[in-house]
Amino acid sequence: MKQWDTVAIIGVGLIGGSIGLALRQRGVAKTVVGIGRRQSSLRVARRSGAVTHTTIDLNKGVAEAELVIVCTPVGTIVEHVRQAAQHCTERVLITDAGSAKQAIVAALDSNLPRGCRYLGSHPLAGNEKTGAANAAADLFEGRVAILTPTKNTRAEDFDLLEEFWESLGSVVIQMTPEEHDRALAVTSHLPHVAAAALAAAVPESLFRLCGSGMLDATRIAAGDPEMWRQILALNRDNVLTALEQYGAKLSALHAAIRDGNQDEITRFLTLAKKNRDALGS
Amino acid sequence: MKQWDTVAIIGVGLIGGSIGLALRQRGVAKTVVGIGRRQSSLRVARRSGAVTHTTIDLNKGVAEAELVIVCTPVGTIVEHVRQAAQHCTERVLITDAGSAKQAIVAALDSNLPRGCRYLGSHPLAGNEKTGAANAAADLFEGRVAILTPTKNTRAEDFDLLEEFWESLGSVVIQMTPEEHDRALAVTSHLPHVAAAALAAAVPESLFRLCGSGMLDATRIAAGDPEMWRQILALNRDNVLTALEQYGAKLSALHAAIRDGNQDEITRFLTLAKKNRDALGS
Repeated sequence: MKQWDTVAIIGVGLIGGSIGLALRQRGVAKTVVGIGRRQSSLRVARRSGAVTHTTIDLNKGVAEAELVIVCTPVGTIVEHVRQAAQHCTERVLITDAGSAKQAIVAALDSNLPRGCRYLGSHPLAGNEKTGAANAAADLFEGRVAILTPTKNTRAEDFDLLEEFWESLGSVVIQMTPEEHDRALAVTSHLPHVAAAALAAAVPESLFRLCGSGMLDATRIAAGDPEMWRQILALNRDNVLTALEQYGAKLSALHAAIRDGNQDEITRFLTLAKKNRDALGS
Repeated sequence: MKQWDTVAIIGVGLIGGSIGLALRQRGVAKTVVGIGRRQSSLRVARRSGAVTHTTIDLNKGVAEAELVIVCTPVGTIVEHVRQAAQHCTERVLITDAGSAKQAIVAALDSNLPRGCRYLGSHPLAGNEKTGAANAAADLFEGRVAILTPTKNTRAEDFDLLEEFWESLGSVVIQMTPEEHDRALAVTSHLPHVAAAALAAAVPESLFRLCGSGMLDATRIAAGDPEMWRQILALNRDNVLTALEQYGAKLSALHAAIRDGNQDEITRFLTLAKKNRDALGS
């Protein structure tokens, strides 16, 4: 397993903080520099042991890094990767952890100064919580991490990042940025939108009548609105398509209930249970 | 706290089994008779300590009971209450645990033979699991139990059942059957339908790309299809209305994403988060 001398993490929230914790607890990196906008969140990351050094100066923070990981909200990733490339050592590899890839990869692929390369990552980890205070060293264990190489990606960069995510316990999958965004619109962005609409549909007077079904179904809606706004904007077309497919499923179920079509309701609920059982716990 | 000599539970699945466990562990009932259709599930209930006696003969099972609780799927509750009233001691109180109340109460209110009375209950407990093997003595602790009295309900019957659910740790709320069904369509039946449609919308090829958001949002869809079919059928009109309101929320969010109306997306996601945060964990 490759040992990294210095890894810089831009954005030490739940994902960035968890990467730092995993790197340090698994002995994958000696020095982990946490780069953020606020001293307060950097302090949380440092105290939890997620990072060894912190700075609010991105340019200084990436200067010694062999690997830079951008874990900021998707709307700011392109800017942070570009800035990192300007100030890190020449020919450094830069990746990110963003939930949308197509627009980001298109902007950065083979397009960085000073011989730096960008290769997109997306670890399928995280939940409704935010901040380094909720970070966990095992967040990536057994979870999928997607890499989105293009025809310009160097094989050695792919191998490096594959080994990196595997060293945090992840199972690496390769997809094109387009495939990634189409798939994640269904598997991640749609559930967020569905949960948010469900939470928004409950009037305050009924809060006390919500049981575990509602609590589970809306849990992800507690996620950071600004982070999710950026994801929905960046993956707009795929999210709209996924929403339309979801709307069609709901309409079919509505029609079956309205028409008293018990066989169709049973068929629908049975398929849903089969799928859900297959997803595991 | 009233001690019951003999309580009969018709249907010893997750809810019936948990009532039995709670009654016995809290010393609320001396004898708990579990009545079911299959010896195999009755055996599970007996071995777990949820019931002291079991029988597949409903008529015999209710003969000695001071209180009968029907915990079968909603489509069979009316029939089971009527049968219990025919065979239990005269003037016995009968309740149920069904998720829909209006049709059941309308059929049974002041309409039982031999001086027996029915008063509807609905403990807001349970999850996607089924069967006495998943029963838990603390399932009702701190949870709401709804009683749905009518103008025909005797105050002493209400008091008895209020004390009964409180003795299992529940907080009792009183609603009319109509209010109950309108509210639960939104707080319980809608999330099930939304989760089922979401689970049905995920093609098998994308299962491995589902993260914790999808897992949470669809968890309830693993519930028993036949149980839920009956609930949706019995609360049809309210469920359709709730589904239409949910559809309107989804359409509003779809329009905001389509139009790139970032302020509206933020407003929507922020309201959703506020509601979800208020629901607790």
